Amino acid sequence: MKTVVVTHVDRAPGNAIKQLEELGTSTVHEALGRSGLMKPYMRPIYAGAKVAGSAITVLAQPGDNWMIHVAAEQCRKGDLMVVAVTADNTDGMFGELLGTSLKARGVSALIIDAGCRDIIPLTELKFPVWSRAISAKGTVKSTLGAVNVPVVCAGALVNPGDVIVADDDGVVVVPRKEAEDTAAKGIERVAKEDKNRARLAKGELGLDIYNMRGKLKELGLEYVDRLEDE
Amino acid sequence: MKTVVVTHVDRAPGNAIKQLEELGTSTVHEALGRSGLMKPYMRPIYAGAKVAGSAITVLAQPGDNWMIHVAAEQCRKGDLMVVAVTADNTDGMFGELLGTSLKARGVSALIIDAGCRDIIPLTELKFPVWSRAISAKGTVKSTLGAVNVPVVCAGALVNPGDVIVADDDGVVVVPRKEAEDTAAKGIERVAKEDKNRARLAKGELGLDIYNMRGKLKELGLEYVDRLEDE
Amino acid sequence: MKTVVVTHVDRAPGNAIKQLEELGTSTVHEALGRSGLMKPYMRPIYAGAKVAGSAITVLAQPGDNWMIHVAAEQCRKGDLMVVAVTADNTDGMFGELLGTSLKARGVSALIIDAGCRDIIPLTELKFPVWSRAISAKGTVKSTLGAVNVPVVCAGALVNPGDVIVADDDGVVVVPRKEAEDTAAKGIERVAKEDKNRARLAKGELGLDIYNMRGKLKELGLEYVDRLEDE
Amino acid sequence: MKTVVVTHVDRAPGNAIKQLEELGTSTVHEALGRSGLMKPYMRPIYAGAKVAGSAITVLAQPGDNWMIHVAAEQCRKGDLMVVAVTADNTDGMFGELLGTSLKARGVSALIIDAGCRDIIPLTELKFPVWSRAISAKGTVKSTLGAVNVPVVCAGALVNPGDVIVADDDGVVVVPRKEAEDTAAKGIERVAKEDKNRARLAKGELGLDIYNMRGKLKELGLEYVDRLEDE
Amino acid sequence: MKTVVVTHVDRAPGNAIKQLEELGTSTVHEALGRSGLMKPYMRPIYAGAKVAGSAITVLAQPGDNWMIHVAAEQCRKGDLMVVAVTADNTDGMFGELLGTSLKARGVSALIIDAGCRDIIPLTELKFPVWSRAISAKGTVKSTLGAVNVPVVCAGALVNPGDVIVADDDGVVVVPRKEAEDTAAKGIERVAKEDKNRARLAKGELGLDIYNMRGKLKELGLEYVDRLEDE
Amino acid sequence: MKTVVVTHVDRAPGNAIKQLEELGTSTVHEALGRSGLMKPYMRPIYAGAKVAGSAITVLAQPGDNWMIHVAAEQCRKGDLMVVAVTADNTDGMFGELLGTSLKARGVSALIIDAGCRDIIPLTELKFPVWSRAISAKGTVKSTLGAVNVPVVCAGALVNPGDVIVADDDGVVVVPRKEAEDTAAKGIERVAKEDKNRARLAKGELGLDIYNMRGKLKELGLEYVDRLEDE
Repeated sequence: MKTVVVTHVDRAPGNAIKQLEELGTSTVHEALGRSGLMKPYMRPIYAGAKVAGSAITVLAQPGDNWMIHVAAEQCRKGDLMVVAVTADNTDGMFGELLGTSLKARGVSALIIDAGCRDIIPLTELKFPVWSRAISAKGTVKSTLGAVNVPVVCAGALVNPGDVIVADDDGVVVVPRKEAEDTAAKGIERVAKEDKNRARLAKGELGLDIYNMRGKLKELGLEYVDRLEDE
Repeated sequence: MKTVVVTHVDRAPGNAIKQLEELGTSTVHEALGRSGLMKPYMRPIYAGAKVAGSAITVLAQPGDNWMIHVAAEQCRKGDLMVVAVTADNTDGMFGELLGTSLKARGVSALIIDAGCRDIIPLTELKFPVWSRAISAKGTVKSTLGAVNVPVVCAGALVNPGDVIVADDDGVVVVPRKEAEDTAAKGIERVAKEDKNRARLAKGELGLDIYNMRGKLKELGLEYVDRLEDE
Repeated sequence: MKTVVVTHVDRAPGNAIKQLEELGTSTVHEALGRSGLMKPYMRPIYAGAKVAGSAITVLAQPGDNWMIHVAAEQCRKGDLMVVAVTADNTDGMFGELLGTSLKARGVSALIIDAGCRDIIPLTELKFPVWSRAISAKGTVKSTLGAVNVPVVCAGALVNPGDVIVADDDGVVVVPRKEAEDTAAKGIERVAKEDKNRARLAKGELGLDIYNMRGKLKELGLEYVDRLEDE
Repeated sequence: MKTVVVTHVDRAPGNAIKQLEELGTSTVHEALGRSGLMKPYMRPIYAGAKVAGSAITVLAQPGDNWMIHVAAEQCRKGDLMVVAVTADNTDGMFGELLGTSLKARGVSALIIDAGCRDIIPLTELKFPVWSRAISAKGTVKSTLGAVNVPVVCAGALVNPGDVIVADDDGVVVVPRKEAEDTAAKGIERVAKEDKNRARLAKGELGLDIYNMRGKLKELGLEYVDRLEDE
Repeated sequence: MKTVVVTHVDRAPGNAIKQLEELGTSTVHEALGRSGLMKPYMRPIYAGAKVAGSAITVLAQPGDNWMIHVAAEQCRKGDLMVVAVTADNTDGMFGELLGTSLKARGVSALIIDAGCRDIIPLTELKFPVWSRAISAKGTVKSTLGAVNVPVVCAGALVNPGDVIVADDDGVVVVPRKEAEDTAAKGIERVAKEDKNRARLAKGELGLDIYNMRGKLKELGLEYVDRLEDE
Repeated sequence: MKTVVVTHVDRAPGNAIKQLEELGTSTVHEALGRSGLMKPYMRPIYAGAKVAGSAITVLAQPGDNWMIHVAAEQCRKGDLMVVAVTADNTDGMFGELLGTSLKARGVSALIIDAGCRDIIPLTELKFPVWSRAISAKGTVKSTLGAVNVPVVCAGALVNPGDVIVADDDGVVVVPRKEAEDTAAKGIERVAKEDKNRARLAKGELGLDIYNMRGKLKELGLEYVDRLEDE
C-alpha cells in the first residue's frame, strides 16, 4: 500500500448526482445493469436518510481512524466519505466529533466498512452514516493508510470521484463516467415502473403485464390441482 | 425439484387464524410445544406489524423472483406468501411493485428467506415483510421453481395452507390441522399469564409463584454469602 | 461450574454510577483505557435507552432461564442483571413476565448474551434489554447454573457489583473499584471534547487541532496530485 | 412438539441405497433436480468417508443428547442417524461412547446439526460424522424430544426412512420413494459425464461440447479485444 | 487497560498438567463441571496435536503482535501462550519466526483469538497453534497491550498460570487451583467410561446401561408404531 | 455490468511469477506493503498446494457457472482463473469436469468466491481450488456475466493479468506492473528473515534482535511483579 494522499479528484456533474440521489439505490443498481452494490451488511444508523455524493476514499487500518482526519481536508461541499479497512473490523472508528467536523465542511454522509459510534448524537446532528456495525470501541491514530486511492469497500470497488448513492436499501457505487448515463436510464425505468404500478394496484397480475405465461409454459411449468401421494 | 404450481390449498378456519394473530408468535410458539419457529435472523422491515394468514408457498432460485409472480395468482384475500430459496441468498427479491401487486390481491404479508428492497415505500404502503436481509440487489427471472409445495423456510417446514404468525418477535408456522387446537391452548396460556403478571407486578417472585424453591434445593443449588478464595 | 448463589454483592458508589450513566458507553470505554466493551452484536431492543447499574450476574444454560428467576431475588433497586450463557444461543430466554418482575423490584435493565422476546410489551413497559438476538423461542427450566459468580458475557468479564453502562452504542463493564476514577476521567474527557467540538463545528480540521501534520510527515505520508499510471 | 418415538420406519430398497452411495452427493443432488441438499456448513470430521443409509431421525434440544440414546434402539444395520436440534447449537452432542454404541449396532454414520467431539477416537473407530461444528462442550440429558418424526436438519427436510447420502461434498436427502428413480437417473448422468470428461481431458471446450456459443451470442455476449477507456 | 507486564506467575503442579494433557479436552471439560471451554471456532492448524501447559497471557491490539514478542521473555519451558485481542480480528498475528522463537524457549503451543500464518512451516516445526483463522495478513508493532493479566480469549476467562488443555476437540481452561482436583476427577471419569465403552461395544444400549427408561417414561415419552395422519 | 469477454490480457513476466510462487503468500503480502490479500474465508480444498499465475477473471451470477466455460477458452498455460460472483453464494459452481477441462488447457488453479464440489476427484487430479465453501449444490447456465473485466473477489480487486499467489495461508493479488518489484522485495525479505530465524532458533529474543526495549519503555510499558489487589 502506498501511504499517499491524492489531492486531485474528478467529480461527476452535480445534476447527475442530484438525479441519482432522487432515484435511490434500487433503481440506480438496476440502471447500472445490476452492479456496483455494496454488501447488504452495510446499514444506516438511522432510517430515512437518502444521499448521493462524490466519493472521497480512505484506506485505513482496522481500529485506526487517523486517515479520516487526513481525508477531511480533501473534502468539498457535497462530497461523501468512503472508508475501507485493510481487514474485517467493527471498531467504532467514527463518532460525533468527526461527524461535526465533516458536517461543518459540507460532507453529506459517511460510508464505513467498520463500526460507528455516538449514534444518538449523530442522529441529532442529522449526519447519516452507513456502517457494518455500531460499536463504542475507540480507536488509535498510529498507522498510515491512504486517501483518494481506489479501495474495495464492503465488496465494491470505489474510485475517488465515483458517485455513491445510499438509502435504506443499501449503498451503490456509480463509476464517475457512467453517472449521467445511469441517471438517464434510471429516469426511464421509473417512468415505466409508474405505469406498471398503476396496473398492479388495480389487481392485474405481473404474469400478464410482463407476458410471462408463454415462457413459463415453454420451460415446462406445470399446473396441478394436488401433488400426488406426497 | 418438480417445477409445478399446485392450485388447490386447504386453509385453516378464519376464526383460528384471527385468534393466532392476536396471540402473537411467542405465545403461539409455546402453545405448539415450542416448535415451528423460523430462525431469528428473520426480521420485519418495520416495527409493530402483527399478522397471521394461510401460507402460499414458493420455492425460488437464489436471485430469481419469477416464481413470486406465478404465486401471486394463487393467493386469496388473507393469505400470506412464504418464499424459500434453494441456497442461502440475500438479494432483494421482493420490492414495492410486487408489494403493490400482493396488497391489491389482499395478501397480508410476505415472509422471505432472502432479501427485500424498497423498504421505505413498502413501509408507506403498510405491506409488512419479514426477511433475512435488506438489499437493493435486483434479480433475474430465468429459472423455474415451484408454488404450493412443502418448503423449508428459515429452518422451518411450511406446508401450503399452514398458518403463519408473524410479529416483532419472529415468525411461527402452525400446521393447518393444529390451528384451532393451538389457538385454544394459547388463549388458556394468556389467561394464566395474566394472573401471574399481576402478582409479578406487585413484586412477588417467580421463585414463589411457580414453586421453584424445593426443586432447586433438591438439585443442589447452594446459597453462600461469598465465594471462597477466588 | 459451581451451582451456587452468592448473596453478598459489593456495589460501587451511587454517585459514580449516576455519572457513568450520563457519560455513556463511548466516553466510559475511552476513560477505561479502551477496555471492558462487550461485543458489538449486543443491541438494545429499542432505541434511546441509557442506563447504568450494579451487575447481578447469572450463568445460565442455553435455552434455560431458570437462574434468571433465582437471580431476581438477589436484585436491589438500581441493579442491572447480566446473563451469560454456557454456549452460544439465541433463544428468547427473557420476556415480558420476567420484565414485569424485574421492573417491580427496581432493576433498571437486562443484558443477555442470548435472545429476548416480547419486545413490543417490553418496550411499552420501558424495560430496556440489550441482547444478541430477538427470538420468540421459549425456554425450559431444568438445569442449574449460578448467580453472582464472575461470568464472561459477550466477550467481557463481569464480576458481580461491577458497573454496567449501556446505551445505543453498546455495553461497557466498569470494574467496581475503578468506577469513581473512571467517572472522573470521563468528565475530564467530555470537557476537552466540548472545546474541540466547538472548533470542529467552525470548520477547523482535526489535523490542526490535534497537531497531526508533523507526525504524519515524519512517518512518510506523501501528498500527490495524481497517482502515476494506474 | 410431540414427545414421541415412532418405531416403524419404511426403508428404501437396499440396492438403491447402495447405488446412491456409489454415485455420491454431487451426482445424486443433480439427479434429484438440484434439491435435498443440506447447508454446506455440514462438514465431515475426517476426509474420504462416503456413505448412504436409511434415516433414523432425532429431534433434540440444544445441548441435550438424551434422544440419541433413545434413537439408538430404533436403528438397524445400515441405518444412518440424523439429529436435528430445536435451536442453533454447536455443543459436542455426540462423542466416542455413542459412536461405539452406534457402530456396534451397525449404524453407518451420524449427521448432526450441532457439534461433535472425540474426533480423534471417532476417526480411529472409522465412524464418520457430519456436523456443523467440532466442540468438546458436554451435554445434559434432561428434556424430551422425538425420534422418527419429520425433522428439518441443516435446512433440509428429512423423513424417517429417507435415504441420506454423505461424502466430502456434503449431505443429500433422497425421499424414500424417489430412491430408485434417483439412482437410475444418476447412473445415466455418470455415463454421460464419462464421455464428456474424456473430451474435456483432450482439451475440447465445454463451449463446443455443450453447444453454448449460439445461445451466448443470442443473449448478447460480446467479445472485444480491450475495454474502452476504463 | 493497564499497559503492564506481570513477571511473576504461579503455576500448577507439573504432574497435574501432565495428567490433564493425557485426559484431553472433552474429559477435562466434563471434570470441570462443563465449564472453561473456549468457543468452538478455535481450531488447530494441524490435526493430532495434544498439549497442556501453564498460561502466559497476552492482551494485544487487533493486527498488532508486539506484545507476543514481549511475552516470549516471560515464558518458561512447558508454558503455553494465550493471546487475546481487544476486538474481533483474523489477521495472521503469529507465524514461523515467532514459532521458532517460542519453540526455542520451550513453549509448547500458542492459543490465539485471531489469525495464524505460515501454517506449513509451523506444521513442519511441530509447533501447534489453535486460532480462529488462518490468514497471511501481516501485522504492525505500534500499540502497547499487556502480559500476564487476566484475559478473555475466545469467550473463556484465562488467568496467568491457569492450565490450558488443547487438542482436536478444542481448548479448555482449568483454573490453576483446580488443576489437581480436575485431573483426579477426570481419571475417575475415564475409568468409568472404559467400563461403559466395553458394554456399548457389545451392543448393550445406553438406555439400559444408564437406566434411562424409567425417567423417560415418567416424563411422558411415548412409543407409537406410526404417527397418526401426518 | 457489461456482458463482455475481453480477449487480450497483458501478463507479468514468467520469471517474476515463478519467484512469487516460491515466496508464498505471507511474504508476498508483506512485500506488497501488506495489501492485496483476499479475505481469510478463502481456503484450499486440499493442503500443501502452492501456485502463482496470471489472472483470467470471471464475473458470474450466483449459482450460474456459464461464464467459467466461456473463460476456459481465454486461458493460456500457466494462467489461473479467478471467479467473482455478484452476490454472496456458496453453491458448488466448479467441479471435476471443469477441473479436467482447465487442467487440460494448462490452467494451474481456480480461485472462486463461491463453492466448489467434487473435492475428492479434484484432489486426485491435483487441480487446486481455493473457495469460500465446499458444496454439492449444482448450478444453472442461464445468465450472462463477463470475462477479463476488473472484479472484486473475496474483498480484493483483481485485474486481468494480475499475478495471483495462493497457498495454505491464503490468496494474494499482485498488480501486474508490481510483480517484478514485489518479487525482488520478497527475496530481500526472505534473506533477512533467514538471519533472524537462526538467532531466534538459538533462543535470542525478538525484543533484542529487533531493538524493541527502548521504544516499549518510552511508550510506557511497565514491568511489575504482581498486579495490585485485583
